[in-house]
Amino acid sequence: MEEILAPLRASVKEQGDLVRKLKAEGAPVLDVKKAVTELNARKKILEEKELSLAPQVATFDRAKMEDLLKRRFFYDQSFAIYGGITGQFDFGPMGCAFKANLLQAWRQFFILEEQMLEVDCSILTPEPVLKASGHVDRFADLMVKDVGTGECFRLDHLIKAHLEKISADKRTTDDVKSDCQDIVVKLDGMTKAEMAAVMQKYNMKSPLTGNDLTEPIEFNLMFGTQIGPSGLIKGFLRPETAQGIFVNFKRLLEFNQGRLPFAAAQIGNAFRNEISPRSGLIRVREFTMAEIEHFCDPADKNHPKFDSIRDTELLLYSACNQMDGKPAEKLTIGSAVDKGLVANATLGYFIARIHKFLVKCGVDEKRLRFRQHMANEMAHYAQDCWDAECLTSYGWIECVGCADRSAFDLTQHTQATGVRLAAEKKLAEPKIVDVVEATPNKGVLGKTFKKDAKIITDALTQLQVSEVEALEKDLESNGSHELTIDDKKFTLTKEMVTVKRYQKTLHVEEIIPSVIEPSFGVGRITYAIFEHNFKMRENDEQRTYLSLPASIAPLKCSVLPLSSNAEFAPFVKQLSTALTKVDVSHKIDDSSGSIGRRYARTDEIAIPYGITIDFDTLKEPHSVTLRERDSMAQVRIPLDDIATVLHDLSYSKKSWADIEGKYPKFEQQESKGV
Amino acid sequence: MEEILAPLRASVKEQGDLVRKLKAEGAPVLDVKKAVTELNARKKILEEKELSLAPQVATFDRAKMEDLLKRRFFYDQSFAIYGGITGQFDFGPMGCAFKANLLQAWRQFFILEEQMLEVDCSILTPEPVLKASGHVDRFADLMVKDVGTGECFRLDHLIKAHLEKISADKRTTDDVKSDCQDIVVKLDGMTKAEMAAVMQKYNMKSPLTGNDLTEPIEFNLMFGTQIGPSGLIKGFLRPETAQGIFVNFKRLLEFNQGRLPFAAAQIGNAFRNEISPRSGLIRVREFTMAEIEHFCDPADKNHPKFDSIRDTELLLYSACNQMDGKPAEKLTIGSAVDKGLVANATLGYFIARIHKFLVKCGVDEKRLRFRQHMANEMAHYAQDCWDAECLTSYGWIECVGCADRSAFDLTQHTQATGVRLAAEKKLAEPKIVDVVEATPNKGVLGKTFKKDAKIITDALTQLQVSEVEALEKDLESNGSHELTIDDKKFTLTKEMVTVKRYQKTLHVEEIIPSVIEPSFGVGRITYAIFEHNFKMRENDEQRTYLSLPASIAPLKCSVLPLSSNAEFAPFVKQLSTALTKVDVSHKIDDSSGSIGRRYARTDEIAIPYGITIDFDTLKEPHSVTLRERDSMAQVRIPLDDIATVLHDLSYSKKSWADIEGKYPKFEQQESKGV
Repeated sequence: MEEILAPLRASVKEQGDLVRKLKAEGAPVLDVKKAVTELNARKKILEEKELSLAPQVATFDRAKMEDLLKRRFFYDQSFAIYGGITGQFDFGPMGCAFKANLLQAWRQFFILEEQMLEVDCSILTPEPVLKASGHVDRFADLMVKDVGTGECFRLDHLIKAHLEKISADKRTTDDVKSDCQDIVVKLDGMTKAEMAAVMQKYNMKSPLTGNDLTEPIEFNLMFGTQIGPSGLIKGFLRPETAQGIFVNFKRLLEFNQGRLPFAAAQIGNAFRNEISPRSGLIRVREFTMAEIEHFCDPADKNHPKFDSIRDTELLLYSACNQMDGKPAEKLTIGSAVDKGLVANATLGYFIARIHKFLVKCGVDEKRLRFRQHMANEMAHYAQDCWDAECLTSYGWIECVGCADRSAFDLTQHTQATGVRLAAEKKLAEPKIVDVVEATPNKGVLGKTFKKDAKIITDALTQLQVSEVEALEKDLESNGSHELTIDDKKFTLTKEMVTVKRYQKTLHVEEIIPSVIEPSFGVGRITYAIFEHNFKMRENDEQRTYLSLPASIAPLKCSVLPLSSNAEFAPFVKQLSTALTKVDVSHKIDDSSGSIGRRYARTDEIAIPYGITIDFDTLKEPHSVTLRERDSMAQVRIPLDDIATVLHDLSYSKKSWADIEGKYPKFEQQESKGV
Repeated sequence: MEEILAPLRASVKEQGDLVRKLKAEGAPVLDVKKAVTELNARKKILEEKELSLAPQVATFDRAKMEDLLKRRFFYDQSFAIYGGITGQFDFGPMGCAFKANLLQAWRQFFILEEQMLEVDCSILTPEPVLKASGHVDRFADLMVKDVGTGECFRLDHLIKAHLEKISADKRTTDDVKSDCQDIVVKLDGMTKAEMAAVMQKYNMKSPLTGNDLTEPIEFNLMFGTQIGPSGLIKGFLRPETAQGIFVNFKRLLEFNQGRLPFAAAQIGNAFRNEISPRSGLIRVREFTMAEIEHFCDPADKNHPKFDSIRDTELLLYSACNQMDGKPAEKLTIGSAVDKGLVANATLGYFIARIHKFLVKCGVDEKRLRFRQHMANEMAHYAQDCWDAECLTSYGWIECVGCADRSAFDLTQHTQATGVRLAAEKKLAEPKIVDVVEATPNKGVLGKTFKKDAKIITDALTQLQVSEVEALEKDLESNGSHELTIDDKKFTLTKEMVTVKRYQKTLHVEEIIPSVIEPSFGVGRITYAIFEHNFKMRENDEQRTYLSLPASIAPLKCSVLPLSSNAEFAPFVKQLSTALTKVDVSHKIDDSSGSIGRRYARTDEIAIPYGITIDFDTLKEPHSVTLRERDSMAQVRIPLDDIATVLHDLSYSKKSWADIEGKYPKFEQQESKGV
């Protein structure tokens, strides 16, 4: 396998070296950009070949899984009876219970264990907030419209489909085919103008009507609305939950008694008006996120609990390896931080915790990697960024982002509002500083400006040093200075304001904290877990099931009376009450199918344990059988023990092996789906 | 007290009798409406007098409570650093933890205990769904605009403020004052035209600018947006979560293996673009709801678990008592259902369960009543409706609605989509019915209409009996019949379609289930709980606290080392680990304040239990003190027991009395807030 990949790896490395060289030489931006686009194209070819050669972890039939998920209503398209809307999904009882359990596990694992400050902020967000965050200006995709019908197409999807169609045509020459394939791999990195040129070159029309298409248009992905009845306050549905935390920074810092570091977290819905969503839960218009913002001193990004996760082994796919055409590497997070591969210990701590969480919830460790953003992918302010990617039938998909965003967000909101989103840090030693201050003469100001005097006084105290110096210069040269506050102008004279200079001893300094941001896409994680846990019984492809961990399975156990014999009914009721009392969610299936068929049905909805009430149950001492989903093994358990056993299994207090060790095996053959 | 109220009660009864009489006589609608408006006005005067005379349950200072909630960041205005938006709130760490606990309790109490089907549906809803539900046409409030600035005012608020100002003016004559007061009490029931007349009579202008105002405008309270990039798919943010359940009815019924009754539930956010929101959490633009839709056979609204709640005593305020000027009555739900006061046992079951849930979560039973909607308040399709109302400083506020909505919603969506949202019910005895059917001749249709033949065939099978008979008549008289499908017309002849008549034996019948809907406003319940649990220490008004039940308190316990002595640190760490292990959320407060001051601070955020590590803790056998918030009583507990004790207290497995009975009292006086 490596033999086949070697030339591809070499080709990536060659281009990676070129990019490095160009950057080192300070080559023109456009040249670097072109080289990076070519690098990405070669990386993509390498990755696709790698995937095609990799031994399949499991045979996987997406259609079969989707059938199961739809049939048992884990989730399905929203408003289907009205024709449905693409990119929107409703979670049914099983999907909803799974999601609630996953979020509860997340809350337990991150918020409670780290004592994070959880918040729950508004979804509707006024425009200025998202202007400051950059979303109003930059959160857009390119699209084109059918000039006749107004139908919209996401431009990269349109080009890809068009060129693939040409490539597939027998009459197409090899030269053209090769050009098409070349463009397709480079699409991701293309500019608006480059894509427009491709459209023109291949004379692309609307695939639905054959009509002409518009020039590429930047389409902002946020859903807009008006807040309040006047139509004057423009708002958006938030595209991420993070901004709600940033705008509450001061309150949170105060809640934490002014101390750094601390982390805030939020679970909630966010919205993106995708141009043409597809790929099921992977790309949707409405989704749940779980985000953490860890605020820390930019000069100290150590983490007190780093040693507890130092030895965690991860598959890390560094930017350097990506440029060199090398594969991802297995490393401990300790050594990755030590050698500077991961920028700091706090970032490393979260990467390891994300890994542990995903694996605990059912992501297959062999199909999980952390990929570092390459310099060109990262926002200019980001220090380092690693994505947890899961391998699925859609390829490697990003499920969790983990970035060091430096002080960017707090700085932006500070600039937009004038409210300083900063913390105080005690200085190691007191520091003496020079102060230049414009001191108002309140008496004179009051007489002259009446009720405006206060805003002038406030404005004077907030002037920057350079502004105070300009004022001083004006007063000296002209005897007056014009102060502008919110479009109003005020003429200040020497009698109204004095410039003072003095020295001050500081014991604290103001710092804008750095932010480390782990950001979880709940829908994508859900999808990856489903795919990694979708199984077929050996020798019976029709019998599919989901091997979800008990802790996040929608229901923890089933209660199955062997037949409709009336004597079983009181035991069903008694068991149900006992299980409810110890918080074990369960499903009673007293329908008429054989036990085997009912097991198969509960396996489909991932129920890990099944209690069967049979004729032996009626005898004293009462007992039942307990079956484990994945192994299909069964044990016989006294009725009085069963609720406690199920509670322990459901909440990870005991393992199935513990139970098998304690109770006698029940040998009766499970009849197969009949 | 009853002496003062007697004439008011008589006045209500007099008007109530008049309304009954008018209805009985079939008086003109307008006359009935006027009489009802007057009835409501008299009811309002009675209720206000009752409230003013009632002995205060507790002295309550809203400003003090709001200060606490804001200062300790339970919740606060969203986007405050950007100036904020009215009607939007962010929940900080304490508010968010409280809300998560409340929702978890709700899920446990309703969904798990009743094995309801929980769903999680899309917030963005396409227009046709909300057209069918009636929201597009009827979900509106009246407003007027300042013609100069475009500023909007909710009309009833504007009129009320204006007339109250006139009443308060010393120069106003008694006649005018009395007219103003009369209008204010009748405002709720006024039509658009009546309000416009009042505006004109009192020559109302914009209170901000003095400009003229527009005529009253109906403003739809839904937030609109466009789904997808074309701008062609109109959508709204859902104004309630219920519709998501209705449109999924078929999938849910199938999940329940076709059987009735079953209940589905949803917790989620909904949005209403209030014209001028105020009253804090009571009226907001973005809020969390928890809704249940219980689907049952309209002919059988019994509930299998009714006997388990039959003896629950409730304060019921029936429509009849409201019309007779009588007060609410204490009754068991059993007797209320028996005497037909509550329409059916399922509705009664939910009313009792709602009562139990609210009281369990901290609503004061003495300040909770169930008020029945009067005929004029209820939607035409509703069979019966009771609101759980909590008495707060804003008056009685509706926190939970519980309505029998009959088959309205499923019928509406069936009509809009053509998808039959119905269930099959087994007939007691097979039934023979006459069938009249239009049978297509597929061969002839195919030849004549080519690809349209299929839609014609489908349309023929879906014709109503009356339509088949009309077709038969046409074919007989004209030899042809014109069939219209989606604006297309097809001419059918005798050769293409035959009308058949025969008899069929039915074993099941199709029924459209009735829906019983308990609908919880989470924000309003939250507010009522806060108000009912806001307390001041005796003889110390500055020491305020929240006496929330442990199960929903944001944090379960505090860990307080007596001083900064380094020997305490390992115990703090050990306790924190042990508490995390048993899922007890806690706060470590190792700041320098006195223990008394730190207790006061944890009381403010409703922490029910406080562990103090003192010098005795260092001695073997290690022990700590445990303090209960409301009684401030303390016991001494071995260190090894403490995690289990806290777990049992936090999850309502043990009461404080149990703990006081088991461990020795710790007598040291708590120093008061110093």
